[in-house]
Amino acid sequence: MFQTFTASTRPEDGIGRLAALRDHLGAEGLSGFLVPRADAHQGEYVAPCDARLAWLTGFTGSAGFAAILPEVAGVFVDGRYRVQVKAQIADVFTPVDWPEVKLEDWLIEALPGGGVVGFDPWLHTGAEVARLEAALGPHQITLRPVDNAVDAIWTDRPGRPDAPALSYPEARAGRSSAEKRADVADLLQKDGQAAAVLSLPDSINWLLNIRGGDLSHLPVVQAFAIIGADASVQVFSDPAKFADLDLDDGVSVRNWAEFAAALATLSGPVRVDATTAPVAVSHILSDAGIEIDKAPDPCLLPKARKSAEEIAGTTEAHLRDGVAMARFLHWFEEAAPGGNLTEIDVARRLEAFRAETGALKDISFDTIAGAGPNGAIVHYRVTEDTNARVEPGQLFLIDSGAQYEDGTTDITRTLPVGDVGAEERECFTLVLKGMIAIHRARFPRGVAGAHLDALARAPLWATGRDYDHGTGHGVGVYLSVHEGPQRLARSGTVPLEPGMILSNEPGYYREGAFGIRIENLVHVVEAPEGADPHRDMLAFETLTFAPIDRRLIAPEMLGPEERAWLNAYHGEVRSKIEPRLRAQGHGATADWLNAACTEI
Amino acid sequence: MFQTFTASTRPEDGIGRLAALRDHLGAEGLSGFLVPRADAHQGEYVAPCDARLAWLTGFTGSAGFAAILPEVAGVFVDGRYRVQVKAQIADVFTPVDWPEVKLEDWLIEALPGGGVVGFDPWLHTGAEVARLEAALGPHQITLRPVDNAVDAIWTDRPGRPDAPALSYPEARAGRSSAEKRADVADLLQKDGQAAAVLSLPDSINWLLNIRGGDLSHLPVVQAFAIIGADASVQVFSDPAKFADLDLDDGVSVRNWAEFAAALATLSGPVRVDATTAPVAVSHILSDAGIEIDKAPDPCLLPKARKSAEEIAGTTEAHLRDGVAMARFLHWFEEAAPGGNLTEIDVARRLEAFRAETGALKDISFDTIAGAGPNGAIVHYRVTEDTNARVEPGQLFLIDSGAQYEDGTTDITRTLPVGDVGAEERECFTLVLKGMIAIHRARFPRGVAGAHLDALARAPLWATGRDYDHGTGHGVGVYLSVHEGPQRLARSGTVPLEPGMILSNEPGYYREGAFGIRIENLVHVVEAPEGADPHRDMLAFETLTFAPIDRRLIAPEMLGPEERAWLNAYHGEVRSKIEPRLRAQGHGATADWLNAACTEI
Repeated sequence: MFQTFTASTRPEDGIGRLAALRDHLGAEGLSGFLVPRADAHQGEYVAPCDARLAWLTGFTGSAGFAAILPEVAGVFVDGRYRVQVKAQIADVFTPVDWPEVKLEDWLIEALPGGGVVGFDPWLHTGAEVARLEAALGPHQITLRPVDNAVDAIWTDRPGRPDAPALSYPEARAGRSSAEKRADVADLLQKDGQAAAVLSLPDSINWLLNIRGGDLSHLPVVQAFAIIGADASVQVFSDPAKFADLDLDDGVSVRNWAEFAAALATLSGPVRVDATTAPVAVSHILSDAGIEIDKAPDPCLLPKARKSAEEIAGTTEAHLRDGVAMARFLHWFEEAAPGGNLTEIDVARRLEAFRAETGALKDISFDTIAGAGPNGAIVHYRVTEDTNARVEPGQLFLIDSGAQYEDGTTDITRTLPVGDVGAEERECFTLVLKGMIAIHRARFPRGVAGAHLDALARAPLWATGRDYDHGTGHGVGVYLSVHEGPQRLARSGTVPLEPGMILSNEPGYYREGAFGIRIENLVHVVEAPEGADPHRDMLAFETLTFAPIDRRLIAPEMLGPEERAWLNAYHGEVRSKIEPRLRAQGHGATADWLNAACTEI
Repeated sequence: MFQTFTASTRPEDGIGRLAALRDHLGAEGLSGFLVPRADAHQGEYVAPCDARLAWLTGFTGSAGFAAILPEVAGVFVDGRYRVQVKAQIADVFTPVDWPEVKLEDWLIEALPGGGVVGFDPWLHTGAEVARLEAALGPHQITLRPVDNAVDAIWTDRPGRPDAPALSYPEARAGRSSAEKRADVADLLQKDGQAAAVLSLPDSINWLLNIRGGDLSHLPVVQAFAIIGADASVQVFSDPAKFADLDLDDGVSVRNWAEFAAALATLSGPVRVDATTAPVAVSHILSDAGIEIDKAPDPCLLPKARKSAEEIAGTTEAHLRDGVAMARFLHWFEEAAPGGNLTEIDVARRLEAFRAETGALKDISFDTIAGAGPNGAIVHYRVTEDTNARVEPGQLFLIDSGAQYEDGTTDITRTLPVGDVGAEERECFTLVLKGMIAIHRARFPRGVAGAHLDALARAPLWATGRDYDHGTGHGVGVYLSVHEGPQRLARSGTVPLEPGMILSNEPGYYREGAFGIRIENLVHVVEAPEGADPHRDMLAFETLTFAPIDRRLIAPEMLGPEERAWLNAYHGEVRSKIEPRLRAQGHGATADWLNAACTEI
């Protein structure tokens, strides 16, 4: 099993750790310390040695941070985690509704006389520190870069991960590392930069056509890197991990410890992504008098524009995953109404179906399996402590994904356990209408996710409902299940381009009652010619093929185009998945799938 | 008549003027000169003395600019003016598709060896100059602030306008100037600024509760102003215009000529809107060592959030305008199919109906009255040279508005001249579906126009069609018919707030064939409570009441909610306008309106 269900933290542990941290801050003459969720690579997944926020506070969500002051210790979490955080932290911590309450405003109110707040410059980006300093400066609050205060009290902190780096086949990537490095170098030359600092592991793994095993769910080797305008790359990591790799000429691997010194010897201008790189990088460059050119990580867009080979691999990965999903959905429909399943049973069973494909490398994130009210906890992660029984009459929300070597999947289905109420069906159908609006969207070049997000929400908005998360995120290929810059959300301002993979996952959540989310992955393609031959339009092509539960749909709420889309989708699910089921000896599931794909 | 139809420019005039300008530039040692459409106040309407772009090139559109170089003279116009510009400029000028082609890229290509390009620092904003300098610097192209080169050769340039400033009743504004000044001063204090420079006439006229007659269609007195954090205001204009006004204590009027010296004596930080203020303002402040704080004009948002009295006035203005529109639409339906009308006849007749309200102060912009293919010219302004006959079988597009003392209107209707083709009806219905989507939208606080724009386009996008303009713009109250920061467009990133007035005007244009646009004004209101009592939603309330021509609607293309909206809208048109028509003795039009508002 790739997923464990043991609670990794206990609220009460935070009490003593907070006291120890405050003692340490007092000794260091600090009024406070910031504890982000992120590691130095700002990724969603962190190694156990970097899980400082969870270790200190007990909160295990995928985003958030804490600000520890002498009198108050705020744990800042977004709308997805409002419910979860209350269960995970002791009452010595105070949950703060973020981003409604900004850290800077909270600090100004909590430190009316000013003060010195410490932070670890390897864990915060330049953009974040600059924004805080601008807001705090007039209020006599200073930010001071210091050695990490959590590490100082974390006496049994685990060591760094030591999995080896692995080569990723060029046939899957579609481009050699040399080609990718040349493209990025061209970009640097065009922008007048001598080098770029890379701090995101998926950028570095993409660029070098490598993968690794340093983290759960994200198959990367962790590293920093510097790429020159001559396409040479210096990697800073653990050289032992690279011992068995045959790297290109021009790619060298050095020790982590040499990174700072290497930065200080660069010629400028050096491209730094101030929104993702540690501010320590900018401090080192500035102190050495090297010109910094703030610009996005140069790998982001080339990585987001998937090659034809990557799209082909992802397509196959989704069909493979679709067989596992069909088997799972069939099993759930038969087993759940008996009332004898728990959330963990369901998550285990889904992972087992995926493992039976023989190709599962990992799950792409911890499965979210929420029965009834737990479905309303947007990023609920079941543990043995919270594990609920799946009761007849409930909705069951399951959001899961797989890492296969040819692609990364992410799918959510909301399932009825026997008969459910009319309101659940109404809300499900509203969510489905929004999801269909994205699937059906055509749009000109230049349009970004921020401009399309409302299409998914309009049916809910019309009834006064909404959901507190984006409609979709970018997805990598055997890389992160959450990647930028493409995004279907108000924050998604980068124009969509052919080859980008996105999730389409509107939802609706009623706290304490039920949660609904339906999610397919799509990729951006050039649309067939329309009525105006002078306009090139883009469209979304579907990657995910699994039935959407017809028992939850109120057909009278769908317009003719929506109904046509749904029926065509189910027709594709049947034609793509049924033959695979039969070929693999799952005839009963094939029959079930046929029925589940009946037109409405 | 407020509108004249004589072509104000002739293409051939530009030939000699361009030659004279090039001689002047040669004598000054300049490689080029930039000729914007804007005056020092960056407004859409300019006085004759400031119409430099039209005088030089012949192009009279409401946006664009020219870049004059020794070998090429580019006239940059956006999608609305691609057709018009070709008819208005001589072939010594080269039309450039802007913003697809950026000025900076065009200059870099046209001046491969570099050069010195002059510009008038009173006519360009700081943001614009900074952007250009960043792009041009690496290519050895320097921008040099100079005395205006067009003025140097424009020997018969008209004088400044001299209309008096007038008081605007507090009962209409809903807030006294003292209250407004105190609010803006609070904002400056909160932002730590000692003063703000105001360069937009509608900001200054709003702030002081005054209006004027310096410009066509925009009832303002032109001025610069400085507001202090103590709420005092210095106005820089022609003091003689203010002689009859009883201004508050703390508001002084000084001569234009004193503005630069007054800037140089300010204490900082001084708030300057770098996107609207002339870069000359920043140059003067910087040269005097005064700290500049770049931030939006502090009047923009308070002005955009209309008071209850302003909304009440605007509502009444629209009902008054609705009577004139009903009389016009009735007249057109009877007169047009005979084939004896020209575009100018139609525009004159509409203005006459508005004048008969007895309350018309001005039209809010030159009426766009386009028959058949002229309707595809998005901002077509008919002149005697272009005046086309209205032919049976055509679509006729008429976009017009009025300035009444209680409000500003802006309405577009597309009308069939007798029977029109099926494609016109299909496109009209697609545009109508988009317009209805905006009218029906509900959305949470925080949503901006950029997030809603796609709702209006999705029906067209689905068929491969689109339109090259925003879906809607902000509208003032007896001020500019185009105001910011609210906007239904991808550039509209400011969240919508109750009280904001916007147009809702999707369209579709087939060059050489026909144009379609349907436009109502709306204002943002708090929506009634929906299904989720924890969500406060906003909605649009309609201001414009005039029939949408049922003969152009393909009812089978409308969904049930769209049909319900249309029928409810026509019901409101009838209930609000018919009694006024009868009370004013227009019984035949009342009967016609009744029929035009029949349910579909």
